Amino acid sequence: MSLPFTIDEYRSRLAKVRGHMDEKGIELLLVADPANMNYLTGYDSWSFYVPQVVAVPRDPSDRPLWIGRQMDTAQAPLTSWLPAGNVVGYPEIYIQTRDSHPMDWIAGYLLNRGWDKRRIGIETDTYYLSPKALDRLRAGLPNSMFVDADLLVNWIRSVKSETELAYMRSAARLAERVMQVAIDTIAPGVRQCDAMAAIMATQIGGSAEFAGSPTALVPLLMSGRAAAAPHPVWTNERFKSDQTTCLELGASCHRYHAAIARTLQWGKPPKKLVNTTKIVEEGLEAALATIKSGIAAGDVEAAWRRVLDRNGLKKESRIGYAIGLGYPPDWGEHTISLRAGETTILEADTTIHVMLGMWMDDWGMEMSETVRVTRTGVECLTHFPRGLEVRT
Amino acid sequence: MSLPFTIDEYRSRLAKVRGHMDEKGIELLLVADPANMNYLTGYDSWSFYVPQVVAVPRDPSDRPLWIGRQMDTAQAPLTSWLPAGNVVGYPEIYIQTRDSHPMDWIAGYLLNRGWDKRRIGIETDTYYLSPKALDRLRAGLPNSMFVDADLLVNWIRSVKSETELAYMRSAARLAERVMQVAIDTIAPGVRQCDAMAAIMATQIGGSAEFAGSPTALVPLLMSGRAAAAPHPVWTNERFKSDQTTCLELGASCHRYHAAIARTLQWGKPPKKLVNTTKIVEEGLEAALATIKSGIAAGDVEAAWRRVLDRNGLKKESRIGYAIGLGYPPDWGEHTISLRAGETTILEADTTIHVMLGMWMDDWGMEMSETVRVTRTGVECLTHFPRGLEVRT
Repeated sequence: MSLPFTIDEYRSRLAKVRGHMDEKGIELLLVADPANMNYLTGYDSWSFYVPQVVAVPRDPSDRPLWIGRQMDTAQAPLTSWLPAGNVVGYPEIYIQTRDSHPMDWIAGYLLNRGWDKRRIGIETDTYYLSPKALDRLRAGLPNSMFVDADLLVNWIRSVKSETELAYMRSAARLAERVMQVAIDTIAPGVRQCDAMAAIMATQIGGSAEFAGSPTALVPLLMSGRAAAAPHPVWTNERFKSDQTTCLELGASCHRYHAAIARTLQWGKPPKKLVNTTKIVEEGLEAALATIKSGIAAGDVEAAWRRVLDRNGLKKESRIGYAIGLGYPPDWGEHTISLRAGETTILEADTTIHVMLGMWMDDWGMEMSETVRVTRTGVECLTHFPRGLEVRT
Repeated sequence: MSLPFTIDEYRSRLAKVRGHMDEKGIELLLVADPANMNYLTGYDSWSFYVPQVVAVPRDPSDRPLWIGRQMDTAQAPLTSWLPAGNVVGYPEIYIQTRDSHPMDWIAGYLLNRGWDKRRIGIETDTYYLSPKALDRLRAGLPNSMFVDADLLVNWIRSVKSETELAYMRSAARLAERVMQVAIDTIAPGVRQCDAMAAIMATQIGGSAEFAGSPTALVPLLMSGRAAAAPHPVWTNERFKSDQTTCLELGASCHRYHAAIARTLQWGKPPKKLVNTTKIVEEGLEAALATIKSGIAAGDVEAAWRRVLDRNGLKKESRIGYAIGLGYPPDWGEHTISLRAGETTILEADTTIHVMLGMWMDDWGMEMSETVRVTRTGVECLTHFPRGLEVRT
């Protein structure tokens, strides 16, 4: 097995996590977000549809434990740096059954290990820890005190290492190829699903150096009426001549994502689309020109909004969010948001999807870049002509 | 827009749900599982990465409401039968922010509507309702009593209608094609990711009649060492001659799934693989011969186990589960499990993925079918030769 990162890098992540645990007085951290589990241990599997956690004790002499379904323990030696003794499986009988829950077993295990009389940090707003799971954990650990540790690991991983950035640059190269395939495939008469098949085959084929995977956020293709809605599902309808298609695409390398959105016009572009695209491009440049470490997230949005205001346009939703390591259903990291009044200070080596989607009543357009915040400005990871792509 | 089902079918589903609500004394049901939301309203979007619910009042004169992110309300008229007045959006400012939560807004909305002094049923073990979301909902609705309604809708949808079965048969035809593409593509020297690109492109291209989508459970390809683990991720390694590959694949039609697993051997098959395949095929036949409505799920497993016992083999995990409508990360419905001692009685028109995976220390084999339970026996939805596929 070859790990995507050195063991030293995993250790330094753990050290940062333990630092944050100290600050919050957390003695045992239970991590259920599969991206956070991967970040700390390397563990990578489509096993997160059943309960599983990584347990991080505060004491650095205690290595973290992966605890999950017995059959999935076999995946740990294939993907993680944890020694066999730190991989623990619960019996199959706990899977999707009426009278017991995997968390009953996990609570019992932690109790038997003497890890119960502690302040336990828990991710309370992640997809893969349900209210019932947390209730059962609490019930089985009556001597523990539970502390909200939501996003604790997410904030740490918002700042990327050199190797993480290298993977995101590789993902960006692939994302550009995915965008080109989309633009080259979409044409009047082609079915949406056939274009999407070409798009996802390119994502998954990856490059000569790495295997791709489906992006954590599914590719989004907004055409015709559906261009008014930002997260549609594709159909078997055929593209038409004189049609606008928004493409929010991306690619991943070792589950690190780069995203890019562009707008494709078949036939003569409507004037409002041409005008809006120019304004949005100017607004994107203004937003990117503002970004550097030390700036508040809200200031980036303000720079964009000034361009919109001057041109009489409105956009209610945020214009960007932290992106990086992710599992379905989201490539966003749920930390930084670029939106009005947001006081979060941008740090160097955070990575952001600056996403400008204008979804009007019955049409839309999109333009986005994935960028890295630097001390002096911004590194745009994605490279693709920004203007409207027009085909006839 | 063309709905995949008649409005009468959606209404009859709602009537069944209200019947179960009555039994449990639930006056308002909040559904957060995107498959259940789709089942009741048709709503289909990749928007479930932010909080959203369908609210079902017990009174049949009150139509259900879809409540979610403002920008995603645009998807409702494209996919659901709900009138515009029953689609409610919360403001963007609630998205992934520190001091408020979308459920604060949703609780306030329900309160203002006078729907608070009720017994509210909630799905407590679904992926897309977090502990924090439920806490905020409770905090905002202090006069409500919360009742566990986990799997209430799942159990109803475990029994399929004629149209649902038609979609599953269409999915089965596509799944067979996906399996054939996999077997035709995998060969020594081909990279795993390139085979997966071909597999997923076939899933997504769908058929002449419908658009495919990625299956809710990602295609699983277990080759070499990874064949010992049931939920691996593919890599850019090349297939070797003299290698066994397990394929757990599937396809979906309108998000209704059919799954199928087979084992492919390149080169001379090891004797243990040939022998195990024969035993598993015999066990599968024994299990299928037992299935019919009125039989307990555990009896099906017992028939399989008798064959294994006679041949000195062991398998700890369940041998099947309800399958149907699903969103990532799972195509299973979390209701019926075929396992030792399970007392659930199988009903006619439930659909089950009978999944026989033998994951040994450093090798594995798999064989599965998606079936429909009938009054007299079983309809096998998937058709593909069951034996080991051998290529040289």
